[in-house]
Amino acid sequence: MKTPATDTISSFSLAAMIRSARRNYAEVRTHSLALTRSLTSEDQSVQSMPDASPTKWHLGHTTWFFETLLLAPHVPGYAPFDARMAYLFNSYYESLGPRLARPERGMLTRPALEHVLAYRQHVDAAVDNLLSTMDAAVAPTVLDALALGLHHEQQHQELLVTDIVHAFSRNPLFPAFAPPSGLLEIPRNSSGGAEWLSHPGGIVDVGHDGPGFAFDNERPRHPTLLRPFAIADRLVTNREYLAFIDDDGYRRSDFWLSDGWAAIHANGWEAPGYWMRAETLALRPSELPDEGWLSFGHDGLHALDFDDAVTHLSFYEAAAYAQWAGARLPTEFEWEAASTLPGMRQVADRAWQWTRSSYDPYPGFRPLAGAASEYNGKFMVGQLVLRGGSIATPPGHARNSYRNFFPPATRWQITGMRLARDA
Amino acid sequence: MKTPATDTISSFSLAAMIRSARRNYAEVRTHSLALTRSLTSEDQSVQSMPDASPTKWHLGHTTWFFETLLLAPHVPGYAPFDARMAYLFNSYYESLGPRLARPERGMLTRPALEHVLAYRQHVDAAVDNLLSTMDAAVAPTVLDALALGLHHEQQHQELLVTDIVHAFSRNPLFPAFAPPSGLLEIPRNSSGGAEWLSHPGGIVDVGHDGPGFAFDNERPRHPTLLRPFAIADRLVTNREYLAFIDDDGYRRSDFWLSDGWAAIHANGWEAPGYWMRAETLALRPSELPDEGWLSFGHDGLHALDFDDAVTHLSFYEAAAYAQWAGARLPTEFEWEAASTLPGMRQVADRAWQWTRSSYDPYPGFRPLAGAASEYNGKFMVGQLVLRGGSIATPPGHARNSYRNFFPPATRWQITGMRLARDA
Amino acid sequence: MKTPATDTISSFSLAAMIRSARRNYAEVRTHSLALTRSLTSEDQSVQSMPDASPTKWHLGHTTWFFETLLLAPHVPGYAPFDARMAYLFNSYYESLGPRLARPERGMLTRPALEHVLAYRQHVDAAVDNLLSTMDAAVAPTVLDALALGLHHEQQHQELLVTDIVHAFSRNPLFPAFAPPSGLLEIPRNSSGGAEWLSHPGGIVDVGHDGPGFAFDNERPRHPTLLRPFAIADRLVTNREYLAFIDDDGYRRSDFWLSDGWAAIHANGWEAPGYWMRAETLALRPSELPDEGWLSFGHDGLHALDFDDAVTHLSFYEAAAYAQWAGARLPTEFEWEAASTLPGMRQVADRAWQWTRSSYDPYPGFRPLAGAASEYNGKFMVGQLVLRGGSIATPPGHARNSYRNFFPPATRWQITGMRLARDA
Amino acid sequence: MKTPATDTISSFSLAAMIRSARRNYAEVRTHSLALTRSLTSEDQSVQSMPDASPTKWHLGHTTWFFETLLLAPHVPGYAPFDARMAYLFNSYYESLGPRLARPERGMLTRPALEHVLAYRQHVDAAVDNLLSTMDAAVAPTVLDALALGLHHEQQHQELLVTDIVHAFSRNPLFPAFAPPSGLLEIPRNSSGGAEWLSHPGGIVDVGHDGPGFAFDNERPRHPTLLRPFAIADRLVTNREYLAFIDDDGYRRSDFWLSDGWAAIHANGWEAPGYWMRAETLALRPSELPDEGWLSFGHDGLHALDFDDAVTHLSFYEAAAYAQWAGARLPTEFEWEAASTLPGMRQVADRAWQWTRSSYDPYPGFRPLAGAASEYNGKFMVGQLVLRGGSIATPPGHARNSYRNFFPPATRWQITGMRLARDA
Repeated sequence: MKTPATDTISSFSLAAMIRSARRNYAEVRTHSLALTRSLTSEDQSVQSMPDASPTKWHLGHTTWFFETLLLAPHVPGYAPFDARMAYLFNSYYESLGPRLARPERGMLTRPALEHVLAYRQHVDAAVDNLLSTMDAAVAPTVLDALALGLHHEQQHQELLVTDIVHAFSRNPLFPAFAPPSGLLEIPRNSSGGAEWLSHPGGIVDVGHDGPGFAFDNERPRHPTLLRPFAIADRLVTNREYLAFIDDDGYRRSDFWLSDGWAAIHANGWEAPGYWMRAETLALRPSELPDEGWLSFGHDGLHALDFDDAVTHLSFYEAAAYAQWAGARLPTEFEWEAASTLPGMRQVADRAWQWTRSSYDPYPGFRPLAGAASEYNGKFMVGQLVLRGGSIATPPGHARNSYRNFFPPATRWQITGMRLARDA
Repeated sequence: MKTPATDTISSFSLAAMIRSARRNYAEVRTHSLALTRSLTSEDQSVQSMPDASPTKWHLGHTTWFFETLLLAPHVPGYAPFDARMAYLFNSYYESLGPRLARPERGMLTRPALEHVLAYRQHVDAAVDNLLSTMDAAVAPTVLDALALGLHHEQQHQELLVTDIVHAFSRNPLFPAFAPPSGLLEIPRNSSGGAEWLSHPGGIVDVGHDGPGFAFDNERPRHPTLLRPFAIADRLVTNREYLAFIDDDGYRRSDFWLSDGWAAIHANGWEAPGYWMRAETLALRPSELPDEGWLSFGHDGLHALDFDDAVTHLSFYEAAAYAQWAGARLPTEFEWEAASTLPGMRQVADRAWQWTRSSYDPYPGFRPLAGAASEYNGKFMVGQLVLRGGSIATPPGHARNSYRNFFPPATRWQITGMRLARDA
Repeated sequence: MKTPATDTISSFSLAAMIRSARRNYAEVRTHSLALTRSLTSEDQSVQSMPDASPTKWHLGHTTWFFETLLLAPHVPGYAPFDARMAYLFNSYYESLGPRLARPERGMLTRPALEHVLAYRQHVDAAVDNLLSTMDAAVAPTVLDALALGLHHEQQHQELLVTDIVHAFSRNPLFPAFAPPSGLLEIPRNSSGGAEWLSHPGGIVDVGHDGPGFAFDNERPRHPTLLRPFAIADRLVTNREYLAFIDDDGYRRSDFWLSDGWAAIHANGWEAPGYWMRAETLALRPSELPDEGWLSFGHDGLHALDFDDAVTHLSFYEAAAYAQWAGARLPTEFEWEAASTLPGMRQVADRAWQWTRSSYDPYPGFRPLAGAASEYNGKFMVGQLVLRGGSIATPPGHARNSYRNFFPPATRWQITGMRLARDA
Repeated sequence: MKTPATDTISSFSLAAMIRSARRNYAEVRTHSLALTRSLTSEDQSVQSMPDASPTKWHLGHTTWFFETLLLAPHVPGYAPFDARMAYLFNSYYESLGPRLARPERGMLTRPALEHVLAYRQHVDAAVDNLLSTMDAAVAPTVLDALALGLHHEQQHQELLVTDIVHAFSRNPLFPAFAPPSGLLEIPRNSSGGAEWLSHPGGIVDVGHDGPGFAFDNERPRHPTLLRPFAIADRLVTNREYLAFIDDDGYRRSDFWLSDGWAAIHANGWEAPGYWMRAETLALRPSELPDEGWLSFGHDGLHALDFDDAVTHLSFYEAAAYAQWAGARLPTEFEWEAASTLPGMRQVADRAWQWTRSSYDPYPGFRPLAGAASEYNGKFMVGQLVLRGGSIATPPGHARNSYRNFFPPATRWQITGMRLARDA
């Protein structure tokens, strides 16, 4: 998706801008629904943990986002589709009023899925009409809000995937999400031996400063000082991670951060998320082996693919593996500096990559204005930065300056790792 | 429903017995489905707390019960409809193997509702075939198992109602369950002034000893010694209970058991379950008053009906109200002795009535044999006995010797109270 | 200890009554301090769980009880020793004002032990003065309050023992409480084979009706109907209980109440309280065996005494053992009826005995007046009755009608079991 | 305290080094005991929360640290004073074997305080003997270990203070810690108006590189890039913070990080730690005002001092205040760069100052070798850096490169704030 930068509007005819915006909007919105095609209304209603949301809720929330931040301010006299939606589908915007508590989203068997889909259609028509009829004076503002809404919806597309996979992982039948072909493909990267790529360090500019869309947390672009370092050209594989497990990696404290050591004991973790031993399954599908490592994902339960990248790691596990491997995680600035090195593989097409950087504000950081100020800034404590992108990241969504972030114990996202070391 | 007693079989022709059994079975099973008619598949999938189960789960569990305790032992070579059902739908029978943990029932978006309904049809056909073809030698055993299964399903019919109402009570839209007309009717008892009915006490036999069906916990029938006592001819009303609230009933410790005083503070209770103040609702339906007491139930949210019986009381609240009213709760034996006194109203048609009796075994209690031994006996600690029946108790299910039981903090059942006092 | 009954005062000279009361008071109060002789001020300050209290708190609380229920109402112009004590040492009397939350008692490193001991001396002097100078008119009321206070202190003497033993059980050094010789002696009952004693059942009066002291919960004395039954002449031994463990008693659900099965898993129980395997100790004292069962008690850590009664059982474990043994627990009425059978051993000198009776009010139960109404009545839900007495029960404290009570998961009290069965 | 740098030994005579080391050791160890002079043995035994430790435990742990890291490796044939101490007083060193769980430290009423003091004396004598008799070859290694042990003990001196103050804050009598005069003095800085001091930014070296002692987490010294910024010359005062409270600072979400907003609601925070309203005290000392803000500290309970620095802030509150004030917190690098600006006040003598920097490793960070590798590095996630020093920081302990760190919700440390802003 390409969003025209608002400060270069003069180089487009308004008509072309409108055409592009309508097409972008339609594509992104359609993609969300395409992802749900294999899901029943029951599937779309369940909430498997407080951090995850029902599919139906994602569909409603992203719609409410457009209604609230695009239609309400820009369509004179706009009447909400259903006044109750603001309470049900506001996620965390304190400035936009009271809202359903997050852990209660699974209680929403009503409104029915049909009502949420009707809500989407209503808003889609209103957005299309707004775009089609806007004049040049408002276009920059409208297109900015549109771009934010579309990137927001793309973020929820990834969450929709990881949330339903989490829900299915708690079902003893282990259903496969199995979205339509082409939507979620694991790229066949030859894994082979990893190579170390060198970076000379020095003063390196990081962050976003281009004409395209970027979130506020990627700004301002600013110089950082890096020491020379080396970084792996690909992600750590399941085979490599298994060697860590087999070397008693989960039983030797010296590899672990203190919080990580506590977390693996509190949670009983002995392997990455969604790994399980065949012999422990209550209802083992007959086509699976009787014993050995299985992993679960959007494609259901299957034997572990040793050559694929290891995923569903917490930050703690990634850091412990790196320690065991005699290496370390890259900082987010090293990652960004290295992302364009010749030979880099699996940059953004397989798994988000934990960095050794806490999610702090950039020097000079300014949040967006209005309700959107709550989008990123208020989460800047207690989280770690991930870089890259995953198989569930919609095409065109991520950038090399993109800062994803999650608390260090997070495992239900598609999270892996890339090693680094001092030069 | 009338179940032919197995020891009087010789007085029936086998054909008549079969006719009656098939009719009973069909009626009870149909009633379960009738109760779900207003519910979407999303509604039927949700679990709103660990103690409650999804509608769909009730439909599957009661079916599994027939499959396991009736078909498996009595149909030679019976093949289960789906071998995975035993894991998904076993509730708490340790002797019948591992099972899904109770709080996980809401994760079962698969099997789909359709699959569960197909399971019901399969088992219904098999049961009907078993009944139709059984010979006189096995009839007594088969009919005993059938009777247990039918009373079991009736218990789940009541739970199905109270569980879906609980789920809807956590939805900020407060949907009405609204089952088909006639299934859940609140009887219009004139409340008027309550009258005290006297009982002379003495040696009174309690428990079940007749030819009809009864659970093992109602046996053996045995004599008890009662002092003379008086008992109210009707249940306590909402109006009466409100006077307790308005007299600072929830703020004066002297009315409360210690655990009750702790419970109302821990839970923030200031009124019975499902009572709420109109002015506190995030999404107040426009047809409701702006302020004052509302109550929620199977018929949705509405202004409190002052003349109706107060319901959704915990034992603690019932005991505190009785203390405030200068009375007490009856023991379960007083209740049973008084249940046939002339003038008794609301015996079993409005709300279960907390008694002042802990749920202990009767002298000489013997649980049923086999897996059914886990049906009642293993719960005989930490619970209080309720007597009577509610609007959600299926017709013909309860008896005057019937012992319902729940932990003292339970509020999602249809639980009310009747006062007693020493003569 | 013998407390003169107030309705027989006329048969005593006032002087004799005063002499007896002063002696009783002095003996009971001295006994409390004697129990603390081996404890440091650090020991006396610690609280090892919310249900347990520091030694020092017991010393202060029992003193406050006399100050509040005896001195304040009966000594004109009595000025409290320290006005802050009412807040610190009120246990659970809502009617006597706000108080320190129970789990905070271990925070009271101040007032220092010395201050609490000075408080005791002050109150002791005032009580002695009150007793010495009272006239015949007030004597009955004063002596009633005194008797309640003394029995109250005796109850806390037992708790003082069980609480400090619990605290020491959480210290990896496993110190021995080791009170002065003679205060806590385990009687040497020959265990031998247990004999079944028969009781014919029938109408049996239970409860207290004599001239001596009894708690309100033992009243009124009333008839009960019993079936013929048999009861063991002694308690179950460690050897017998170990046979249950070795027969996989903690791994077979069929012996267990549902709540009990849940409790042993939630708590990781595989043996009675204070049993531990020598090989699991972090700091094993050199004089103990390297492996095998040890048990901990007031006499420290030692090898399990197979012939002694098993103690520190929860109700759940007692009930499960009885089920395994093909027997059951007696009801509290059976216990009371059998307590005077010829041949009964270990009635009240070794361990409290779980009964199969929930702690419900007797028919016609009336709590004491005033603040003392909170003494027993408000706890009559969720608990089980224990009968008998333990090595920590002060001499003269218990009676055959005495009703001790604890929640079913309680293990830090000295709780054992006696088997019963239907005749 | 001055520790001779090991790489400049040649410039000292060994005798002078020994003299200095013995004096340093004696001074630091004596200071620990001096801090306990007003505390009873009961006070020294209590643990008020899992994060805090009893005074007695601090005394034992710091002694164990010297015994384990100094005596054991450097005194041939050294026999531990008491082999059980390693289990009781190991804090978190996984590589040094099993240890008492942190929340259990309050259970240690044994060993008695006297035994811990004897342990100290034994180790003190052994250390003094080691220092007195070491030869030049081992001196550098011994003195390195000694320096680490002394700085370690100084850190525990501050914790000892904050832990006992926390314990006293949970006692409804609010005792004053009141250590001997001179040990804990609040400096009388005139607060006056705060001035903004300017820093030009640019490439600034941070971290430690000198000859004196520093922790591993301050290394390596490395260049950072700073933008021009301004920083306040003094800490925020209670008066200023109160203006934030009075402006509904705790009720307006827009000032707060999301985790902070959640934390103040989960904990019921409406003011800094240890602030309380006089009218809410259960036992109000008569010398205090009837209403208004009080604060609690090592000097007990007193009226709030408006001109003093606000302390006992969580990071969340500091960040929210800064947002309200139109400013921000400095990064740890800005703080270090500004620490020597002319005019800076309250650098290290009043309160630790939260920075806007997560506690991440410096580029090229290498932990110490051996068990000491667990000292700092394994805590580098989920914490925020504080800079400066407090009234409880022993003289000579901190440096401008010193990195203190705590989780963002920490309030029992002496934590305040200094504002910064972009130039």
